[in-house]
Amino acid sequence: MPKLVVRSFAISLDGFSAAPGQSQEEPFGKNGLRLMGWAFATKHMKTLFGGTGGAEGMDNDFLVKSDENIGASIMGRHMFGPPPDAKDKASWKGWWGENPPYHHPVFVLTHEKKAPLPMEGGTRFTFVNDGIESALKQALFAAKGKDVRLAGGAATVRQYLKAGLIDELHLVQVPLLFGQGERIFEDLRGVESLYECVEFTPSKVVSHLQIVRKAR
Amino acid sequence: MPKLVVRSFAISLDGFSAAPGQSQEEPFGKNGLRLMGWAFATKHMKTLFGGTGGAEGMDNDFLVKSDENIGASIMGRHMFGPPPDAKDKASWKGWWGENPPYHHPVFVLTHEKKAPLPMEGGTRFTFVNDGIESALKQALFAAKGKDVRLAGGAATVRQYLKAGLIDELHLVQVPLLFGQGERIFEDLRGVESLYECVEFTPSKVVSHLQIVRKAR
Repeated sequence: MPKLVVRSFAISLDGFSAAPGQSQEEPFGKNGLRLMGWAFATKHMKTLFGGTGGAEGMDNDFLVKSDENIGASIMGRHMFGPPPDAKDKASWKGWWGENPPYHHPVFVLTHEKKAPLPMEGGTRFTFVNDGIESALKQALFAAKGKDVRLAGGAATVRQYLKAGLIDELHLVQVPLLFGQGERIFEDLRGVESLYECVEFTPSKVVSHLQIVRKAR
Repeated sequence: MPKLVVRSFAISLDGFSAAPGQSQEEPFGKNGLRLMGWAFATKHMKTLFGGTGGAEGMDNDFLVKSDENIGASIMGRHMFGPPPDAKDKASWKGWWGENPPYHHPVFVLTHEKKAPLPMEGGTRFTFVNDGIESALKQALFAAKGKDVRLAGGAATVRQYLKAGLIDELHLVQVPLLFGQGERIFEDLRGVESLYECVEFTPSKVVSHLQIVRKAR
């Protein structure tokens, strides 16, 4: 059965996935991009964005595995953008340029009605207005038997987690303090009876945690 | 200079230090004591409570170090008790029996006026009614040049952290989901400019994190 998975999703030591103050310059909020430092250092990420070099090893292996067998993605409105300070909101096509690193259908949860955006390299953004279950249904159909990856952000992951719709959640805990921002684990009373952490794999710089839905 | 330190303080993967539903049977809340499983497995903890055996290694080393050079402790009202369901609240002497594993002066933050409780083995509980700074001052005096350990719980650690009074904070992240409970990192906007994580040392079962106050 195809699954809904969250992979390589970074959270700070105090539980935040983004800092406040998202802007066109700072998609992870003010000084928030450092949450991804462990990932940007890897060979996989450098290659993905057209560069060379980068570290191999455990973090790289996790990132490579994160992209495997994914047929479609889902993301929330803030992860797609535009940020509040974008100059030309109407022509906004996401944060990732003309050739986004998805290369498959991406479903964006939003209240805005918008025509689909076909991009270079196989990414196609479709805007879903009728809720998380509809987005999942559309994404599973588009994935043609492969898994669907829930890309983020925190509020969207939280919604799917609360609904018990996520099959596997791979979190990356980064030893940084944010002080404020958006959490996955907020207002999730009962999550402990639906999900459990089954794997704890620390690298030299972060902790990889595998959380799965318990068997019913 | 003597320091105020927090050591071997466990938090769940989703950021909680205790589960709701504290009772005489369950001081860490309903099913909450599993947060301390990593510690109870060690030689140091077994010895502390009069047992034998237990694991050596990194987690044990951290626990041994946690008790070094400590001249006094501070704790919050819930950490001392009594819990709501205690039968004889007036005769309550803490969770630790007649010979508590502190063996030094312990200052309990509470609104209740209560005479000091001298216990066997050198532990003496003193009840402080006039706030966290007063408790710290009294504990530093009683520690006679040694450090003061802030034992917990979460709400008390949070208060001292917010006031910038903690010098070193050693957290132990345990890969368990609690879903709800009490957090250290709640309502701590600005903590990121006062404190930073300077060490990340994973063992096989938990992550040890060292957080220190930044130089001013």
